[in-house]
Amino acid sequence: MQKFRVESDSVGSKNVPIEAYFGVQSLRASENFNITGRRMHKDLIISLAQVKKATAITNNEAGLMNKKIKDAIVQTCDEIIAGKLHDEFIIDPIQGGAGTSGNMNANEVIANRANEILGGKLGAYDKVHPNDHVNMGQSTNDVFPTAGKMAALKLIPRTLEELRKLNDVLIDKSKEFDDVIKMGRTQMQDAVPIRLGQEFHAYSSVIKRTISRIEKASEGLKIVNMGASAIGTGINVDTEYLKNIVPTINAVVNLDLHQAEDLVDGTQNLDVFVDVSSALKTCAVSLSKISNDLRLMSSGPRTGFGEINLPAKQNGSSIMPGKINPVIPEVMSQVAFNIIGNDITITMAAEAGQLELNAFEPVIFYNLYESIETLGNGVNTLRENCIAGITANRKRCKYLVDNSVGIITAIVPHVGYKVAAKIAARAIATGEPISELVLKEGILTKLQLSEILDTIAMTEPGIAAKHLMAI
Amino acid sequence: MQKFRVESDSVGSKNVPIEAYFGVQSLRASENFNITGRRMHKDLIISLAQVKKATAITNNEAGLMNKKIKDAIVQTCDEIIAGKLHDEFIIDPIQGGAGTSGNMNANEVIANRANEILGGKLGAYDKVHPNDHVNMGQSTNDVFPTAGKMAALKLIPRTLEELRKLNDVLIDKSKEFDDVIKMGRTQMQDAVPIRLGQEFHAYSSVIKRTISRIEKASEGLKIVNMGASAIGTGINVDTEYLKNIVPTINAVVNLDLHQAEDLVDGTQNLDVFVDVSSALKTCAVSLSKISNDLRLMSSGPRTGFGEINLPAKQNGSSIMPGKINPVIPEVMSQVAFNIIGNDITITMAAEAGQLELNAFEPVIFYNLYESIETLGNGVNTLRENCIAGITANRKRCKYLVDNSVGIITAIVPHVGYKVAAKIAARAIATGEPISELVLKEGILTKLQLSEILDTIAMTEPGIAAKHLMAI
Amino acid sequence: MQKFRVESDSVGSKNVPIEAYFGVQSLRASENFNITGRRMHKDLIISLAQVKKATAITNNEAGLMNKKIKDAIVQTCDEIIAGKLHDEFIIDPIQGGAGTSGNMNANEVIANRANEILGGKLGAYDKVHPNDHVNMGQSTNDVFPTAGKMAALKLIPRTLEELRKLNDVLIDKSKEFDDVIKMGRTQMQDAVPIRLGQEFHAYSSVIKRTISRIEKASEGLKIVNMGASAIGTGINVDTEYLKNIVPTINAVVNLDLHQAEDLVDGTQNLDVFVDVSSALKTCAVSLSKISNDLRLMSSGPRTGFGEINLPAKQNGSSIMPGKINPVIPEVMSQVAFNIIGNDITITMAAEAGQLELNAFEPVIFYNLYESIETLGNGVNTLRENCIAGITANRKRCKYLVDNSVGIITAIVPHVGYKVAAKIAARAIATGEPISELVLKEGILTKLQLSEILDTIAMTEPGIAAKHLMAI
Amino acid sequence: MQKFRVESDSVGSKNVPIEAYFGVQSLRASENFNITGRRMHKDLIISLAQVKKATAITNNEAGLMNKKIKDAIVQTCDEIIAGKLHDEFIIDPIQGGAGTSGNMNANEVIANRANEILGGKLGAYDKVHPNDHVNMGQSTNDVFPTAGKMAALKLIPRTLEELRKLNDVLIDKSKEFDDVIKMGRTQMQDAVPIRLGQEFHAYSSVIKRTISRIEKASEGLKIVNMGASAIGTGINVDTEYLKNIVPTINAVVNLDLHQAEDLVDGTQNLDVFVDVSSALKTCAVSLSKISNDLRLMSSGPRTGFGEINLPAKQNGSSIMPGKINPVIPEVMSQVAFNIIGNDITITMAAEAGQLELNAFEPVIFYNLYESIETLGNGVNTLRENCIAGITANRKRCKYLVDNSVGIITAIVPHVGYKVAAKIAARAIATGEPISELVLKEGILTKLQLSEILDTIAMTEPGIAAKHLMAI
Repeated sequence: MQKFRVESDSVGSKNVPIEAYFGVQSLRASENFNITGRRMHKDLIISLAQVKKATAITNNEAGLMNKKIKDAIVQTCDEIIAGKLHDEFIIDPIQGGAGTSGNMNANEVIANRANEILGGKLGAYDKVHPNDHVNMGQSTNDVFPTAGKMAALKLIPRTLEELRKLNDVLIDKSKEFDDVIKMGRTQMQDAVPIRLGQEFHAYSSVIKRTISRIEKASEGLKIVNMGASAIGTGINVDTEYLKNIVPTINAVVNLDLHQAEDLVDGTQNLDVFVDVSSALKTCAVSLSKISNDLRLMSSGPRTGFGEINLPAKQNGSSIMPGKINPVIPEVMSQVAFNIIGNDITITMAAEAGQLELNAFEPVIFYNLYESIETLGNGVNTLRENCIAGITANRKRCKYLVDNSVGIITAIVPHVGYKVAAKIAARAIATGEPISELVLKEGILTKLQLSEILDTIAMTEPGIAAKHLMAI
Repeated sequence: MQKFRVESDSVGSKNVPIEAYFGVQSLRASENFNITGRRMHKDLIISLAQVKKATAITNNEAGLMNKKIKDAIVQTCDEIIAGKLHDEFIIDPIQGGAGTSGNMNANEVIANRANEILGGKLGAYDKVHPNDHVNMGQSTNDVFPTAGKMAALKLIPRTLEELRKLNDVLIDKSKEFDDVIKMGRTQMQDAVPIRLGQEFHAYSSVIKRTISRIEKASEGLKIVNMGASAIGTGINVDTEYLKNIVPTINAVVNLDLHQAEDLVDGTQNLDVFVDVSSALKTCAVSLSKISNDLRLMSSGPRTGFGEINLPAKQNGSSIMPGKINPVIPEVMSQVAFNIIGNDITITMAAEAGQLELNAFEPVIFYNLYESIETLGNGVNTLRENCIAGITANRKRCKYLVDNSVGIITAIVPHVGYKVAAKIAARAIATGEPISELVLKEGILTKLQLSEILDTIAMTEPGIAAKHLMAI
Repeated sequence: MQKFRVESDSVGSKNVPIEAYFGVQSLRASENFNITGRRMHKDLIISLAQVKKATAITNNEAGLMNKKIKDAIVQTCDEIIAGKLHDEFIIDPIQGGAGTSGNMNANEVIANRANEILGGKLGAYDKVHPNDHVNMGQSTNDVFPTAGKMAALKLIPRTLEELRKLNDVLIDKSKEFDDVIKMGRTQMQDAVPIRLGQEFHAYSSVIKRTISRIEKASEGLKIVNMGASAIGTGINVDTEYLKNIVPTINAVVNLDLHQAEDLVDGTQNLDVFVDVSSALKTCAVSLSKISNDLRLMSSGPRTGFGEINLPAKQNGSSIMPGKINPVIPEVMSQVAFNIIGNDITITMAAEAGQLELNAFEPVIFYNLYESIETLGNGVNTLRENCIAGITANRKRCKYLVDNSVGIITAIVPHVGYKVAAKIAARAIATGEPISELVLKEGILTKLQLSEILDTIAMTEPGIAAKHLMAI
Repeated sequence: MQKFRVESDSVGSKNVPIEAYFGVQSLRASENFNITGRRMHKDLIISLAQVKKATAITNNEAGLMNKKIKDAIVQTCDEIIAGKLHDEFIIDPIQGGAGTSGNMNANEVIANRANEILGGKLGAYDKVHPNDHVNMGQSTNDVFPTAGKMAALKLIPRTLEELRKLNDVLIDKSKEFDDVIKMGRTQMQDAVPIRLGQEFHAYSSVIKRTISRIEKASEGLKIVNMGASAIGTGINVDTEYLKNIVPTINAVVNLDLHQAEDLVDGTQNLDVFVDVSSALKTCAVSLSKISNDLRLMSSGPRTGFGEINLPAKQNGSSIMPGKINPVIPEVMSQVAFNIIGNDITITMAAEAGQLELNAFEPVIFYNLYESIETLGNGVNTLRENCIAGITANRKRCKYLVDNSVGIITAIVPHVGYKVAAKIAARAIATGEPISELVLKEGILTKLQLSEILDTIAMTEPGIAAKHLMAI
């Protein structure tokens, strides 16, 4: 039978499971916010513990907290950082109250465990108090956004690393396919030749930009408002503590944090999360476009473009034998759509802030962490299970180029747009190859033609353009 | 030490945990799609089992599957429906492949368990085969969307029930507060009096509309494409089976499903999910507006509007004693923002369908189920922990009305806009009450004034308007 | 040299162009809101005039306004309805103030012109006053949303008509192409055969649903809050007027309007616009999907699918002769993206309402009207300039089917998934046709095969499935 | 009677108005794309002319175009740059074809006018040809995105300038209000005191960040793909031209453009527009939050917060005399919602690119330019007509602080959270001031209290915290 202890707060008394390290406030919040059925992110919990550890150290150094209490708090935080007590964090990630519940959950768990360390009982809070000690000099309004940023800063590097590895593989592929001539298409219509390597290089180029954008936006996450306390004015914040708290956090976990110059701004404005989410979204846009390209180029095997083969990672169908589907690019696009939707949630939540505080950080964190992590996971499988194993159907690619009408473009500078348009029209109508028509009409000699229609030359800028028009 | 059996598919051979009911295809997919760290929704798993049960029965009745196999499949499905074997469903909810992995996961688990029931070994598939039997007459492309709709149809009623209960409480409150006169505000500026009951009635009115919209949109979910098989043409689908499959599903679980008239359309178009998501979104918009109103009217306790009190459900602050925050409306608004973001994801995924299939159902289901459930959960806490316990500060409300300038509006029909505007301007400048100024200026008699400024009368249309203008 | 008259309001005095029918309040607003460089929508202006006409009639009938003034107002409104004086409406469509500026612009123009009719001078407002007469019994807060809904109700039918005509053409095409066998594709990979007519029928099916959704959502626009005055309580609203105003508007212009049962709700909640915008969005999603399909099926002419030809409506390239691009489906998709973006704006604006009023109707109207009109325009060009002229490349379609691997699916019920998968794998590897391989392996007889691979039969459910499995 | 000349292209012959400078292709496109009823943006037209001017010069210098033709083209472009011939640009901004119509419209107008200058006839194209000369070495696919970026680069500085001026005014206000003590509020509940100047400083801080983000994102617009021609491979592009075209554009109009290193990437990826739009969106989020704050703080005049007064810019109501509404912040929020919606459109359009080209630039430009310009316009009116004229109600602000419960927070470090919470509870229940209760209970001396509750001290971090806890 479950046993209980009684705890009280301003709202009244309440039974708390007797062995619980969380307390009455956590319990109320867990009942008030039964939204997603999930819990706060592991890295947010650890970041809260790191912040609390740093505040205890800073308060002690400022002469505000005695060593015994400080040591007990630090020991407890180290336990949480090491992965213990996470089950005691019982609040839904989407919670009202601007994170007060999440912060109080941390305060209660740490106070109870520290109390225990000092020989006290769970629920007594007599030796270490959640508010007076664990939360000393702090407010949810500086602790929660700071921990939230720290968690994001821990999650982003893995995603960036995945993007960098993706970039490496794209570069490798651009070299591997540098001599594969294929048809370029604009608006899904045959255009002019391109080398498959150029395609993959273009993918690499855009990925590099998105990496750089995420890096830049992430810098903004390093500006934290510790010391702001309730609304950024620093009420109840000791000046010594104010000066030392951020360096101390950096000593606990090196994330290169900086204290916001304007702590009032730092407490009420969540634009930095919109900025980071936007960078993730812009990356997602590019990844989904690439994924769609891969689906197009690998379409077939017999009735599509058939230019490349994605590695077969699983059966494609429960009914159609032999079918292999582009499942990896498909999951990447879905991740992208999800990130774009998350961005709207984050945008609306950031817009909805009122006066000294934006109470909607919890839903922002919930969506932001999902965006960061699923982006990394999506990119990982995209690289490992798809792009790294792509092969080119060189013959098919070449065949399509040779039989295309699009190569007429290369002839324009030599014969003018009007003549070329006529040949193109005839080619489309009759199905005859461009080259044969040009020769039949006596427009160019065989030598000229072979020079002009050199497929590599057609994929680079060049001298060819001068022949006719410069006269 | 983990032991393995070897299974093979078109892609090759692979070690599968020896005791696993899932097979090689599930395993591959779980490795390919490591995106959210979550699993498919419980109700989607159960719905898949219900579909598979119905197909076995229908195939048997059509003379396509013998009784022994049918019985083994049905028994297995019943086990899954009862909650067993769910751990064997190992696929991430965001998966590539249009749900093929989810469907094959069901096929493999059911085949293995049914095989076992018939005395066979896990991984043998000799007595019951995942494709030939469990998937007989089906394709992922009809099974997965059908099961996905069924899951939604199971989740929506609870959310509707929560909305209906919310509506009841709003109606109760509109009666309880029918005689509470308070100031109405437009654009955050004092307007004219309103009764607090009228406010709550308006909330009820909009909630009723949103209920009706969700109900109507949900009807669309009842149109399923079972019998479509791969692309809606019904390839490999027996005509007897085609006729009976949907009624049989209804016999297994009564969701009043109907077979789509155009199965090709039913397989490639996901507009119904956009429609349902839009209805949820429109509801979320209204709930967030109401939540913001509650935050405004309860603002204070001393420096805000202070017209109503939300029940104190938890301490509001880790630093500010006595602070009670509107945490429940805050969580409701966050749920709303999340639903609005999910709607964008669903919209983009639906738009991205290509030709005979939209491969992006998984991310749609992931977001749709979250929207439905969090909406229900948010509304539950909004009602139970907030609206049901709201009390009115009658005196404060009355005081604000009496001292407002806005009541000048009631005088306009009697003195004209221009004269009224002058009095209003003076009242704003001097702080004098409107009524005193009107009397001092001799514009109306005391009797006229008391009739006109009767606060109840000011909150209803009425005869007052005729006095002056009809001359 | 521009001459001026001086007008005054609560804010002060101001020069107004001497010949202007608008007055000081319009002028101030036009200076305050210089946002888009555009003016309010023509149909919104006309709807405002229709409302004002109806209010004058209703006020007169209720004994609140004399006949002379009523007649002058009615005559003026009729002029505006006929298209006159529109240049006098000078307010930006994105305006602050919940439409007060738009409403006052109407009040001033009508008052000045009516004054003129009655022999008065512009700017005098002595015979007909903008507030006391033209706005009698009204508030911006009932007039503006009512006129806004009326404008939408006028714009929607043309868009619905375009959608219905599109549906007709899709049905025509579904018949025209009913015997064109082509390859169906799922996830861009060869699946099983389909008839081109079935594709177009599916397009028709989804369009029909979207028509029905827009129709249903539009019904909500017919509920108007005339008589609500400032905040829905009907302050200053005569009961006779209250009863008659909506029927009178219907007499002026028959839009089948109904008075909201809950006028407070009707004044503060804009969910109906979200609902209508959502229906437009869902339609846009489907149209963009269709447009993308058309781009895919017409891709080529030589290196793509090449199954259909879109009519050549313009040269496709400034550099590539002979290139014809799918420009019409491209513009349709862009219209769709724009509508989806507009929906987010409308959603956010509706969510942002506070207490008795949502002040953000102007931006909602701005976006909603654009969505309605561009949807109609896009659909018009899609039908006329694209779909009506589509032709099929029958030979190419047939060739792709015959050489596909996907037809193996039809053989599965006769030989089992495993055997079929092997044949499929061999076909993919060697390039041999499925039918030859099946015969070579002696798996089926030529007769059986020709029956099974009958292409029409493969595009319908059928008896074929029973041969093997029922044993 | 309208007279016509006949022009022909690949599609056929067509009557063109005899005096038109545009030609048959423009005319077709204007008929195909009748979407918004608007025309391409003036700055896009001018940018196209600047590009064309630079190409003529570059081609001439590369020996590809003779001086006579070059001079005629340059003269024509200068005319367009000076504002002439804009009526000849007849294409809808939302157009299919990736801008080919816009580009061909420019090519035709310039060719016809240049032809005319050289003594030729409209429609003859014999002396200067739209494709061979005006479009020499180019493709729509490099010209259109380049011109599109140039137009954005011209529009952004004015918006940035408006933001900078807004920042200046916010700084001014932060100084003006530095000594105005007011109540800070978190989650709409009384928190702790803040100085009004600190509020405005926080607004300035976030605006400064958004300026910096827009500046950074805009840098990306300077990377252009001139020389890419059709798909980035530079087909038909002379190497001399390739090297000189971008510097020559910079010589024509100094926008500090750079040639993309990877021209294939530069042609197919539109991520830079998403990035710029995201920066605008993030700015919009912050502006809307500030606008909502202004509405909250100015709420009243009698029944709201009443802490500040927004300048009265126009009458607030057609029915309620004396009402002044926060119309300027309202229009700002609406602009913000519109920009956020536009961002979704831009995001979807960028995602939808396929292979070598994204055909959806037109709708991106349409939305991006609107976002840039309306942001600038909104900020202009926000500064000029609102923020610059804000005044503070000092007495009201002080009164609210003195009577608040929130100041109890300052006492916590001296008495502990638990004792403070009890006093707060009593104060809320009885309505007694905090200070009186503290004295009555003998918890602190009058001297201590006056030191602790010094309102300026309460708005800064400080020494006060040490008194009790350091024991």
